[in-house]
Amino acid sequence: MSLTPWRSPLARALHLNRSLVYARYFQLATIGNNGYPANRTVVFRGFLEETNQIKIITDSRSQKASQIKDHPQGEICWYFPKSREQFRFQGLLTLVTGEDVELQPARWRVWQDISLAARSQFFGAAPGELQAMGGEVMKGGEIEKVERDTIAPSANFCLLLLDPIEVDHLELRGDRQNRHQYLWNGTNWITTLINP
Amino acid sequence: MSLTPWRSPLARALHLNRSLVYARYFQLATIGNNGYPANRTVVFRGFLEETNQIKIITDSRSQKASQIKDHPQGEICWYFPKSREQFRFQGLLTLVTGEDVELQPARWRVWQDISLAARSQFFGAAPGELQAMGGEVMKGGEIEKVERDTIAPSANFCLLLLDPIEVDHLELRGDRQNRHQYLWNGTNWITTLINP
Repeated sequence: MSLTPWRSPLARALHLNRSLVYARYFQLATIGNNGYPANRTVVFRGFLEETNQIKIITDSRSQKASQIKDHPQGEICWYFPKSREQFRFQGLLTLVTGEDVELQPARWRVWQDISLAARSQFFGAAPGELQAMGGEVMKGGEIEKVERDTIAPSANFCLLLLDPIEVDHLELRGDRQNRHQYLWNGTNWITTLINP
Repeated sequence: MSLTPWRSPLARALHLNRSLVYARYFQLATIGNNGYPANRTVVFRGFLEETNQIKIITDSRSQKASQIKDHPQGEICWYFPKSREQFRFQGLLTLVTGEDVELQPARWRVWQDISLAARSQFFGAAPGELQAMGGEVMKGGEIEKVERDTIAPSANFCLLLLDPIEVDHLELRGDRQNRHQYLWNGTNWITTLINP
């Protein structure tokens, strides 16, 4: 991996905001089939080993999973409240399902890393569908521990990767606002100072 | 205005999170001309009087101002850290410039409401452009107070409105996650309980 100039400012932001659990949440925008953008909060799961690809997890039955089949374009907006800075990551999304061969080990590793509570959601009712009446919806707390504890990921569990081609870093702290743009030209990252 | 069922849960969230200044920030997704979604943090400026339209401000020279001319579709994702809930607002965006007649009073009122620091940005260098070397960029602190204090808005100052047609409210707190969907059918808001 060639030197990535935005990884160090991002690591610094994560460190400065480490006391806030929600500083590891960001907003992922995709394009829906109705011509509207879609935007939701997801959790940062680190980078795919030896790459700059940002790891997210999602349910294969979720809206975003179906949206990126037709529109793999995405943009992450990540605001860090404590250090008052924002990173935007534009790039293509890859959905890693149980069918994927090459990235299957990475999908399994993320499954091992997440909590039992996080795992249990993938065994629950399909997100976004009408809620069944009378308590028929299977919730995390109601699932047998043995099922959640399984080593193999739920079939609904997907690893979602965003591979950045453009990164925009805005710093609001201090007298002077700073904004850096990082563009991937296919070989290198080109850094430019732009107006905030 | 007919009764809007999501206004009361939103008012409650604003109240519960009032100690966090950044709980009034949210992420606005639009569609760029390169086929990618765009996503950035903006500040909630309240509702346009007597409507459900969400007020934002922006610079006419910003990317989002040019994007919404071709793609007026937008989605706001608003996460409230303290109460652990998320609102998503899908709708069309309207850019109110100095040319607009009908909404000019609303644009002027928002200009009066914002701080001098916020005003000064609209007199500064064009956002997103290459930063000039040698300190030629005019920054807030360098602008004469008399200019910032002007009653008339900067020509670059725009009011940006999002008129929701679909609202998704997800509550993560407690044993049970709740998710409500509110759909505008042209006459009324239809409320549905869906799976988280």
